[in-house]
Amino acid sequence: MAERIPTTQGVIAAAEAVAAILPPTPLLPVAIGDVQAWVKAEVLQPIGAFKIRGAWWRLSSLTAAERAGGVVAVSSGNHAQGVAWAAKRLGIRATIVMPHDAPAVKLANTRMLGAEVVLYRRPQEDRDEVAARLIAEQGGTLVHAFGDPWVIEGQGSAAIEIAAQLGRAPSRIIACCGGGGLAAGLALGAPGSAIHLVEPEGWDMVGQAIAAGALVHAAPQAPKTICDALQPNATKPLNLALLKGRAEPGVTVTDAEVRAAQRFAFHQLRLVVEPGGAAALAAALAGKVPVDEDTVIMLTGGNADPADYAATIAGSA
Amino acid sequence: MAERIPTTQGVIAAAEAVAAILPPTPLLPVAIGDVQAWVKAEVLQPIGAFKIRGAWWRLSSLTAAERAGGVVAVSSGNHAQGVAWAAKRLGIRATIVMPHDAPAVKLANTRMLGAEVVLYRRPQEDRDEVAARLIAEQGGTLVHAFGDPWVIEGQGSAAIEIAAQLGRAPSRIIACCGGGGLAAGLALGAPGSAIHLVEPEGWDMVGQAIAAGALVHAAPQAPKTICDALQPNATKPLNLALLKGRAEPGVTVTDAEVRAAQRFAFHQLRLVVEPGGAAALAAALAGKVPVDEDTVIMLTGGNADPADYAATIAGSA
Repeated sequence: MAERIPTTQGVIAAAEAVAAILPPTPLLPVAIGDVQAWVKAEVLQPIGAFKIRGAWWRLSSLTAAERAGGVVAVSSGNHAQGVAWAAKRLGIRATIVMPHDAPAVKLANTRMLGAEVVLYRRPQEDRDEVAARLIAEQGGTLVHAFGDPWVIEGQGSAAIEIAAQLGRAPSRIIACCGGGGLAAGLALGAPGSAIHLVEPEGWDMVGQAIAAGALVHAAPQAPKTICDALQPNATKPLNLALLKGRAEPGVTVTDAEVRAAQRFAFHQLRLVVEPGGAAALAAALAGKVPVDEDTVIMLTGGNADPADYAATIAGSA
Repeated sequence: MAERIPTTQGVIAAAEAVAAILPPTPLLPVAIGDVQAWVKAEVLQPIGAFKIRGAWWRLSSLTAAERAGGVVAVSSGNHAQGVAWAAKRLGIRATIVMPHDAPAVKLANTRMLGAEVVLYRRPQEDRDEVAARLIAEQGGTLVHAFGDPWVIEGQGSAAIEIAAQLGRAPSRIIACCGGGGLAAGLALGAPGSAIHLVEPEGWDMVGQAIAAGALVHAAPQAPKTICDALQPNATKPLNLALLKGRAEPGVTVTDAEVRAAQRFAFHQLRLVVEPGGAAALAAALAGKVPVDEDTVIMLTGGNADPADYAATIAGSA
């Protein structure tokens, strides 16, 4: 079977499938300095993150035989919840490989949605190998968190919603970026818009790959980041192919900038945003990306660890 | 001039005026035990609270002469921000009487919107007397926080949005209740729905008034409550007239139940809700009001004090 190539048409089809089951998340005005721009509040998805889009498009596109075999996914938490949510809704068995140090709230939510969780130790174990071993043993379809063509199209459905809500194409979309699934999907879904991707310092594997024109792997001693959702080992060739020559040069943000953005969202938007979900807003607030009145900033996830969030909001972290 | 009587037609007109300037706040699904009900996310209003509705309807209905004279309001914080927001937008001078111990975030936001803030000491000073003195000295139109007919109609506009979003009349609306402006407006705006009002323990001046058929004043030694937005001295005759025989018996919630609801909103909805804004959700979660799949729970405000919110989320308060 030929590999599926994600397309703008595919994103439009994904948006229809998503719209049939999920209401659009609000596009809310936000003041970035003197400019009134927009945030796309993906934290208001039922699982608290945009990942539900790609998971739904992938799982609802499986054949009957594939559904019967179950799905296997690898995720630090939000893709896990997206796949678990879609699998529960479709009656598909889901096994999710998650790091042993994933936030407790994400582990609990994934299990609560009925998925079986298999833990691995990072960085000693390669999570893709753990998943491959599982599939070899028990069968099932791999639903990759960012390199899967349907997942990319599904994430891009946010761009279709944005254009409808704004009444025009946004000038630019600023996206938090882990492996590059959302960024690639937005690039297809918003062909007339600039796409800016924002990664944590030291974990800009997508920005570096775009600059180098080749995959770049995380350094063994990569710095710690509070953005647990944005720590890929590397992007995938498919994502790189879709973003190279299309996305703007990547931007990185510090933990302090991310925490400032979480506090801003608390005070100005009354939205709970997890660190990885606040990266794009952090870049906008720090002046690291251009912002005009047709700019949309993605708030990608809101599954924050309560103790860490409390420390951020109280200003003690 | 005859006193204006709030009506359902007035609420419908208010809803049109509000819709012209504010997009509808999202109606989001919420799981209350095994039932999927709805929350109306008024925390996503530009000022973080529903009060913007009544303030906009009142101020935009002022005559040119009244506008030129400015407005005076009395508020612990959210009505203050609503009036300041509407006044700024309409170019009207606003003076707001606020308690000296109002949350710092609400004082700061009100001033940031350009209003002049006059502080009074509670309980020693009567805030309505402070406002009357100001108006005697400098003129201006009083915009009462809950007893004003336009304010009541404006708050009721939420019910018109809810019916449109739900595609039918809700079975019941559960509302946080301070002075009874929102509850009275919802009663007019949702004539086919049961209206439940939820107040803090010891501050159920509206529920007691409905039961007694007469105004009831707060006890001089009323207990402390974390719901700073829900501490009226008493409701007004107009609110009582609109609610008596129409609203369900009032319900009260404890501080612990309110904090549990704030944590629930953090984890399940990714919404920041202040204590007074979480009272209705608290009653629903505590099983103190009936909840079915056509029930709408109002999340009325999200201007939470950061230190207090952090303590609640971390579980240390």
